[in-house]
Amino acid sequence: MFEPKFAERSKLLKPSSIRQMMAIAKELLAQGKTVYELNIGQPDIPCIPEFVDGIMRKAESRQINYTPYNGETYLRETYARYLNSYFDRRGVDHLVIDTENILVCAGASHCLSNIFLTICNPGDEVLTIEPFFSPYQGFLAIAGGVLKAIPTEAENDFALPSNEVIESYITEKTKAILINTPNNPSGRIMSYEELERLARLCVEHDIYLISDEVYREMIIGDEEAVSVLQIDLHDDELNEKLINRMIVVDSASKTFSLCGVRIGFVISLQPIVNTIALVNAHTVACISDIMQYGVASCYDAVMWRPEYIEEFRGIYRERLEATMEAIHRYLPKCIVSRPKGAFYVMIKFPELEDVNEFCHYTLEHFNMGGETVALTPAKNFYLDPKLGKNEVRIALVVSPEKMKRSIQIVSQSLKSYKRYKANIDSHMRQLL
Amino acid sequence: MFEPKFAERSKLLKPSSIRQMMAIAKELLAQGKTVYELNIGQPDIPCIPEFVDGIMRKAESRQINYTPYNGETYLRETYARYLNSYFDRRGVDHLVIDTENILVCAGASHCLSNIFLTICNPGDEVLTIEPFFSPYQGFLAIAGGVLKAIPTEAENDFALPSNEVIESYITEKTKAILINTPNNPSGRIMSYEELERLARLCVEHDIYLISDEVYREMIIGDEEAVSVLQIDLHDDELNEKLINRMIVVDSASKTFSLCGVRIGFVISLQPIVNTIALVNAHTVACISDIMQYGVASCYDAVMWRPEYIEEFRGIYRERLEATMEAIHRYLPKCIVSRPKGAFYVMIKFPELEDVNEFCHYTLEHFNMGGETVALTPAKNFYLDPKLGKNEVRIALVVSPEKMKRSIQIVSQSLKSYKRYKANIDSHMRQLL
Repeated sequence: MFEPKFAERSKLLKPSSIRQMMAIAKELLAQGKTVYELNIGQPDIPCIPEFVDGIMRKAESRQINYTPYNGETYLRETYARYLNSYFDRRGVDHLVIDTENILVCAGASHCLSNIFLTICNPGDEVLTIEPFFSPYQGFLAIAGGVLKAIPTEAENDFALPSNEVIESYITEKTKAILINTPNNPSGRIMSYEELERLARLCVEHDIYLISDEVYREMIIGDEEAVSVLQIDLHDDELNEKLINRMIVVDSASKTFSLCGVRIGFVISLQPIVNTIALVNAHTVACISDIMQYGVASCYDAVMWRPEYIEEFRGIYRERLEATMEAIHRYLPKCIVSRPKGAFYVMIKFPELEDVNEFCHYTLEHFNMGGETVALTPAKNFYLDPKLGKNEVRIALVVSPEKMKRSIQIVSQSLKSYKRYKANIDSHMRQLL
Repeated sequence: MFEPKFAERSKLLKPSSIRQMMAIAKELLAQGKTVYELNIGQPDIPCIPEFVDGIMRKAESRQINYTPYNGETYLRETYARYLNSYFDRRGVDHLVIDTENILVCAGASHCLSNIFLTICNPGDEVLTIEPFFSPYQGFLAIAGGVLKAIPTEAENDFALPSNEVIESYITEKTKAILINTPNNPSGRIMSYEELERLARLCVEHDIYLISDEVYREMIIGDEEAVSVLQIDLHDDELNEKLINRMIVVDSASKTFSLCGVRIGFVISLQPIVNTIALVNAHTVACISDIMQYGVASCYDAVMWRPEYIEEFRGIYRERLEATMEAIHRYLPKCIVSRPKGAFYVMIKFPELEDVNEFCHYTLEHFNMGGETVALTPAKNFYLDPKLGKNEVRIALVVSPEKMKRSIQIVSQSLKSYKRYKANIDSHMRQLL
């Protein structure tokens, strides 16, 4: 039997646990079963209608053309205007973003893999904060880089550790600190003080500060997110050094319920933007023109109709309320903290040793009136193998009623699973 | 002044000469000037109408969702059916392709960069045949790989050299031979005998055979292209070894006049397809669902209406006739060979030393009645710095009348450029 030979990096890649669950759930759905897919951040909300108008206009021209490798100028202009208006509407100080600071990639994932390819040689390290969006590790592995994680604790509201702790993770190989605020999976928003502290550390250690802000608009608590674009170090030289080390990532996926559009943005200074653009050119050549026109219509629309974002937030807040209530009622032993941003809830099951098995049990062996739930085991959101073993992440991607029903199903599945485990245990004891 | 630090690979990347010319041409067009953009393979022909229907159906659902990381099953099924029918309609033997053999990427460029990331460690080599599509070098550089090229000669109709010559380029670091048939830029079609010879060499040396077949349908001579999927080594063991080393790349861009759609295909065996799919998952997460639905409609349409391809070919054949005639008439000293596939013509200017300067002169300093032409200097289609210096590539992307007019403009620009050079020379002599 012939074994094809692959490069070292490809041996490190594996399907994310989110995507593995998605494959099983899709199979069950294809069989006609009802699965609440809380495993993936794919909202059921129809996309913003302006998107359809935007792509129709372009599609009807039947001229579907290559675009510049840094993105369609019209979209870059529109996005820069939108981003400035985001801050201006809130009356906060911010770096003023210009068209030349914007690069369009095929989604935020592609932004990150392009950034890592641009800044990391094989063996270089990127620091992130636990828990983190699990595919980061694979995006970095594409460039031969290694992800290191600074642990934070749910009990301490995932607060950023002291500078001493963070610095103990910085080595000569560290190229960047990568943060995600609002955070997937924890829903935490980093404070201005924390961001400023990280910014100073990045300047001092001459490393990049990469800020994944795809959930910036997705606020489900009562405070807005803070962007690294708002940081002021009150010293011209330090600010100059900071903006030369800062790379922001954004995406149209969550803001407009457009996960399948695959349009993301890198925001940085020259020559950083142009260097990442060259990697973009040599990974995908350029980005779909029709999707760029569709997304430009969306950003244009929310500048004129900011209440769209408020409606969106309202929908998620209702889902969060229903979910929190259901967890307290049906899963009283579980530990849960209220997320402030993004649209995920982390649930800790103190009774369980390995929620991975429980998630598979629920999806594949349990149903309640023909309905079941896909969950994401949280293990992969941590590098430390001791962490996240009894946590799951759920996404607020269905109606309040369905969220409540899902928690009920999980609760019943938990009882069934415990009986199943107890049976196996007693069977094992009989065998001994 | 702070200099951002970049990884080694990103220092090797530069904008392709095709794209550099595109940027200048776009600027002139924005100024309201008339530029015949023969520099890029971006046809002016409206895309196949079924594409618009396909994306409308999906867009109107307003459910724009993540897709599986190996591609939407519906598109993979449809493409596999299309590819089998391509061969069956011609009555030729071929490997039967199944849905599981197909991976969807964001265009053929992305297929290639994913393939190189999957099979090449830094320092590994890939062999190709000169002249070649210049961005190959950058796609490979993303993985840290190095492109080596086997020269062929226009005077000898770019025929494949002997096995001995090819083998002299194969080292311990060679991971693959990469071919492109029909070839961009030469328009050459590889013969069955040549493909079989390469296939045997790949099996003997245990390296991959990567075949870029994006122009398979773009035939402008009187013979069809041969695909590596047609190769039969008349020995079960050899065939088994071959199919475990064969990777085919295809794209919707040229066949349907959809360069801006960014949908490409990798065709190979398991586990190769799955391993490349994991790289796909960690570079772009997944591909735009709406574009996949649009492209599925196109492949479905040509299975029922193969005359669409014939109409397409007819358009390019007319353009080729007009161009060849105009070259013979207006550029009688130029050397040109008639392409059989793709839609490019290589023109050699024996009088010129450096066509790069001439191309810039034509685009930026010359016009005829307010009109000018963007050409691609052919230097970058060769690794050998001695080759291609007096060649340009033009793309048959405008009407026969405009192709003829473009050649007239190039002919007048050539006269003007020679006068300009003679003036500089005499001025220099006066200074000495």
